[in-house]
Amino acid sequence: MRNWLLPEHIADILPATARQVESAKAAMLERFRTAGYELVSPPLIEYVEALVSTDDSALALKTFKLDDHLSGRQLGLRADITPQVARIDAHLLAERTGVTRLCYAGSVVHARPAGLMSSREPLQVGAELYGYAGIEADLEIIGLMLASLRGAGVEGLRLDVGHIGIFRGLVQAAGLDASLAQALFDALQAKDASGIRALCADVAEPYRSAFSALPELYGPASVLEAARTRLPSLPEIELALLQLGAIARALGNEVELCFDLAELRSGFYHTGLVFTAYAPGWSDAIARGGRYDNVGRRFGRARPATGFSLDLRDLIRILPEREATRGIRVAQRLLPDAKGEIERLRGRGEVVVLDYLGESAEALGCDRELVAEAGAWRVVPFQ
Amino acid sequence: MRNWLLPEHIADILPATARQVESAKAAMLERFRTAGYELVSPPLIEYVEALVSTDDSALALKTFKLDDHLSGRQLGLRADITPQVARIDAHLLAERTGVTRLCYAGSVVHARPAGLMSSREPLQVGAELYGYAGIEADLEIIGLMLASLRGAGVEGLRLDVGHIGIFRGLVQAAGLDASLAQALFDALQAKDASGIRALCADVAEPYRSAFSALPELYGPASVLEAARTRLPSLPEIELALLQLGAIARALGNEVELCFDLAELRSGFYHTGLVFTAYAPGWSDAIARGGRYDNVGRRFGRARPATGFSLDLRDLIRILPEREATRGIRVAQRLLPDAKGEIERLRGRGEVVVLDYLGESAEALGCDRELVAEAGAWRVVPFQ
Repeated sequence: MRNWLLPEHIADILPATARQVESAKAAMLERFRTAGYELVSPPLIEYVEALVSTDDSALALKTFKLDDHLSGRQLGLRADITPQVARIDAHLLAERTGVTRLCYAGSVVHARPAGLMSSREPLQVGAELYGYAGIEADLEIIGLMLASLRGAGVEGLRLDVGHIGIFRGLVQAAGLDASLAQALFDALQAKDASGIRALCADVAEPYRSAFSALPELYGPASVLEAARTRLPSLPEIELALLQLGAIARALGNEVELCFDLAELRSGFYHTGLVFTAYAPGWSDAIARGGRYDNVGRRFGRARPATGFSLDLRDLIRILPEREATRGIRVAQRLLPDAKGEIERLRGRGEVVVLDYLGESAEALGCDRELVAEAGAWRVVPFQ
Repeated sequence: MRNWLLPEHIADILPATARQVESAKAAMLERFRTAGYELVSPPLIEYVEALVSTDDSALALKTFKLDDHLSGRQLGLRADITPQVARIDAHLLAERTGVTRLCYAGSVVHARPAGLMSSREPLQVGAELYGYAGIEADLEIIGLMLASLRGAGVEGLRLDVGHIGIFRGLVQAAGLDASLAQALFDALQAKDASGIRALCADVAEPYRSAFSALPELYGPASVLEAARTRLPSLPEIELALLQLGAIARALGNEVELCFDLAELRSGFYHTGLVFTAYAPGWSDAIARGGRYDNVGRRFGRARPATGFSLDLRDLIRILPEREATRGIRVAQRLLPDAKGEIERLRGRGEVVVLDYLGESAEALGCDRELVAEAGAWRVVPFQ
């Protein structure tokens, strides 16, 4: 048996990448901190009812189940951190009635991989803002997301923006039942134009045309103008278009924007504005977010919420590789005299490697060495 | 059902503590980096045979099992990172024949808590050195452990040091069978003097007296002198006492040392020197380590290994609380004009919080605010 073979879609993060992941994570957490986001670290395992809402079958399928011999109950291995943060806002920080900003960085585990190339152990990093429903909160979150990605070295970002309120408004006004609404939702997600037409055969106008128009309402800010003429004037649609217009004004000069009014996000808990970041040469989204007002309701506290998250493990694949810093070799015979000098060099951020075996510069990862010359320590080239 | 109740021995890490954990972790990883330790990040889940050696029943009991529907095989949720690092040294880095230094920081999950007050989700941080059997490697690891703890703010450290070679040498020389050896091991771990006497009733001298002497060989470096007279002269014992003597000389002035020749460590894989760090006012060990030569054998590569690990989640409980940095409030109406100034302040490490609701200084966590005065930005007190 080759014990060391790992399960499918599971991998070690090896040295060169691991440091890069760690420093990208630290930079993101520092950015969140300076924007007033408090760090929380929810557990990897919880009671499965707390991790997965009873009606979220997609998340249920992704969540590994564990038997807890302490409680006799079933635990889940978290597949998403957002519901945990909602629990913390709703329960542990419930005395706060104003805006609460929270952030996190931690591994999640998927029983089934999200895609052919996806890891089953994403490293989820995200930030969430509770308690304010205004578009300014979404702009703050989008700004944080873009800055986090750019800080990590991602260039040429594109932001796709949609709004679930448009679809919800149409469904309600057209009086569709839940099963038809779900079928239409799926057809829209798949951009399946003939499927949408077939499902809408018995839907009254102007809703039939509106559903068919959604997949075509895709592109730059001019799409919002087109939407005003092609979609009926419903309060939900007015509000959605107002919010999307605010996004266009605030971010139009800062990032390539693409509006997509058929984007509904398969994520279970989103309610309004949704946004997804893409980078050149990478077909998958590299970060996504949106509004999920009332996500905390099942924990006893429904309030406005918006946030974003990304998989740092995935993101790192598109970042340029950093060259490893070469270190300073110290021959073992110089110890313990060199101890103070070694501490001094390390305190300045230098990598100082003790050489017990007389290894090569390559094996040690060193390009310099510490020597004693005329009673003083000197760092000289080592090859 | 109160969904938000967490399972026993499982807890969220909330804001004040989470930042402290994160910065202690970052400081430790930076220290490891400058000492030449490469960061690895093995997965949370693996095939259970890779995580747990077939004869390590203690680790098997601690490891949650998961059914993998992708492979049809059983996975484990890691309860220890050391065997994973051994797998990486043995397999992925097998082309390296010299010294390999690796470090890690990650959560592990215990199906059963280690103690009444223990978390079932320790945050394991550690460093390991492969490929050199000399005592200098152990001294390097102990130095790293002590510096990591002191860097995190732990004062008044005590280091308990033992050596499994002494017990192993006695068992072999006395020709004890495996079950008697195991019973004696357990009695020694429990410092059960009468139990040891009873178990040794049929053991020949000088081994009977030697086993009985072990629990008394506890204290400062003078214990090593006593051991030379009370224990038989066997090669394993000679080597162990030489190594312990080297520890006494190298560290005697640096940390309070306590030698404990009955300390055998319940950890399955230790083979020689073992050491444990304690701090005042805390009965549990705060870090531990030792030699586990040949830990990689079941992955196809047996070589010398020494290392240490600690539970940062546990450690944080004994550290002094840090006061949270207060931030700078920015009223929403100042946006978007203030954007550049906000970025500048955040870039300097200041926390700058946008205030959408006109909240109090207390609620915002701010003691200053940004204002526009005579066409310039100023930061003034805010209460």
